[in-house]
Amino acid sequence: LPRKQRIEVCFTPAVYHKFHNNETNVVVVDILRATSAICTAFMNGVKSIIPVSTIEEALKYKQQGFLVAAERDGIVLDFADFGNSPYNFTAERVKGKTIVYSTTNGTQAVNMAKEANKIIIGSFLNLQSITNFLASDGHDVVVFCSGWKDRFSLEDSIFAGALVESLINTNHFETICDSSLAAGDLWSIAKTDLVTYLQKAAQRSRLKKNNLDDVIEYCLTPNQTDIIPIYYTGSLISLDNCENDNIFIQRKIKLKI
Amino acid sequence: LPRKQRIEVCFTPAVYHKFHNNETNVVVVDILRATSAICTAFMNGVKSIIPVSTIEEALKYKQQGFLVAAERDGIVLDFADFGNSPYNFTAERVKGKTIVYSTTNGTQAVNMAKEANKIIIGSFLNLQSITNFLASDGHDVVVFCSGWKDRFSLEDSIFAGALVESLINTNHFETICDSSLAAGDLWSIAKTDLVTYLQKAAQRSRLKKNNLDDVIEYCLTPNQTDIIPIYYTGSLISLDNCENDNIFIQRKIKLKI
Repeated sequence: LPRKQRIEVCFTPAVYHKFHNNETNVVVVDILRATSAICTAFMNGVKSIIPVSTIEEALKYKQQGFLVAAERDGIVLDFADFGNSPYNFTAERVKGKTIVYSTTNGTQAVNMAKEANKIIIGSFLNLQSITNFLASDGHDVVVFCSGWKDRFSLEDSIFAGALVESLINTNHFETICDSSLAAGDLWSIAKTDLVTYLQKAAQRSRLKKNNLDDVIEYCLTPNQTDIIPIYYTGSLISLDNCENDNIFIQRKIKLKI
Repeated sequence: LPRKQRIEVCFTPAVYHKFHNNETNVVVVDILRATSAICTAFMNGVKSIIPVSTIEEALKYKQQGFLVAAERDGIVLDFADFGNSPYNFTAERVKGKTIVYSTTNGTQAVNMAKEANKIIIGSFLNLQSITNFLASDGHDVVVFCSGWKDRFSLEDSIFAGALVESLINTNHFETICDSSLAAGDLWSIAKTDLVTYLQKAAQRSRLKKNNLDDVIEYCLTPNQTDIIPIYYTGSLISLDNCENDNIFIQRKIKLKI
């Protein structure tokens, strides 16, 4: 019997370097709200999303004519076309377009993980479809919680626990990592009533303070889409658009040269 | 009403800089085994413990004639007098002595926290007595989990949850920090049968592999002592030996000059 695929959970970007491995598939998670918003954008037909880490980069793209979504601490940046709410990424705005996206935590995590094997975007919205993909793709998995400014975030960790459970249930995975075990246990408490459980989360309070918490239930509702946003040479695209995985083969060749 | 004291939990040394504050009391935690061993040493009459971060420092002290306890990855270093098991710190060996101590995770956390207001050593052995001290001392509290090589550790986090619960129960404390909430929830699952719950912890497996897991039940047994080891100008001493807190007043004056 071959060994099972392994799952590890990284609770904050500050420790991602401890988990990084070129051969590992990474799931970037920022439930409230970046990765839920990215899934929504692809559901609404966005062509690609360029994740940028700094405000300066986002501004530079804006000056080049790109549509830019950008926020810091939940607040839309003044030069941006819109902010971080999934409800901003309507078909009317994003269909067929390439947009540039910069957030407090999530898009920076994507850029930190970019040397991993495959980087995909996870949220409750696509939980089952990323489970199926990760099981069939055959690599070990790191669930990379974006957290809040290098701190532990309850909603990202709960989702990590949901994904750990879902992956273990495929029978392809095992974990011996303490953070995966903890995430799974937190999920076991939270799952009977997610919305109530996350009432106490700090990020929920931050959003509420700014009247931005209208998306909470939406972001916690699982399996709304089969779309898997995946990172490819600087952009997020939909896995559907990757014919027979060839672009990844090309990418690997490119990385070896 | 004055605001309540606040509790935060720091899951790994990699993020301690996000929690550090000169006015905060820090509880350093390394349940398996450093902080349990330090409490035991004071129970057995050690005069003081010099925590050192590097093997080189430990060796230098050894060459100066100090008694040295030192391990890496659970294994006693060859030049050391003994290692990291609480059972090593017998009255016969340590009573009335100053010893030098260097471990994989715990003693480094002590040294990282040394600019905080007061740094005390926490374990299940002195859970109630540190609760009483922290409530009466009046400062905010950071529970600093030593973890394992900058990773999340289940046993340290469970203890953090026990301490959060114990502090909240005094009515002096509140928390809005996601990691405190998560630690409390993990503790609520673990506390009905701690030993069984921690069967799955990675550190337990590491200790078992090296036949070093004979101390697990001992390290998980609460309230065996009233002793509070506290950091003072480079050493850990027993709070009992601090007459009327004067040494801390002196220390503050010293820091201001």
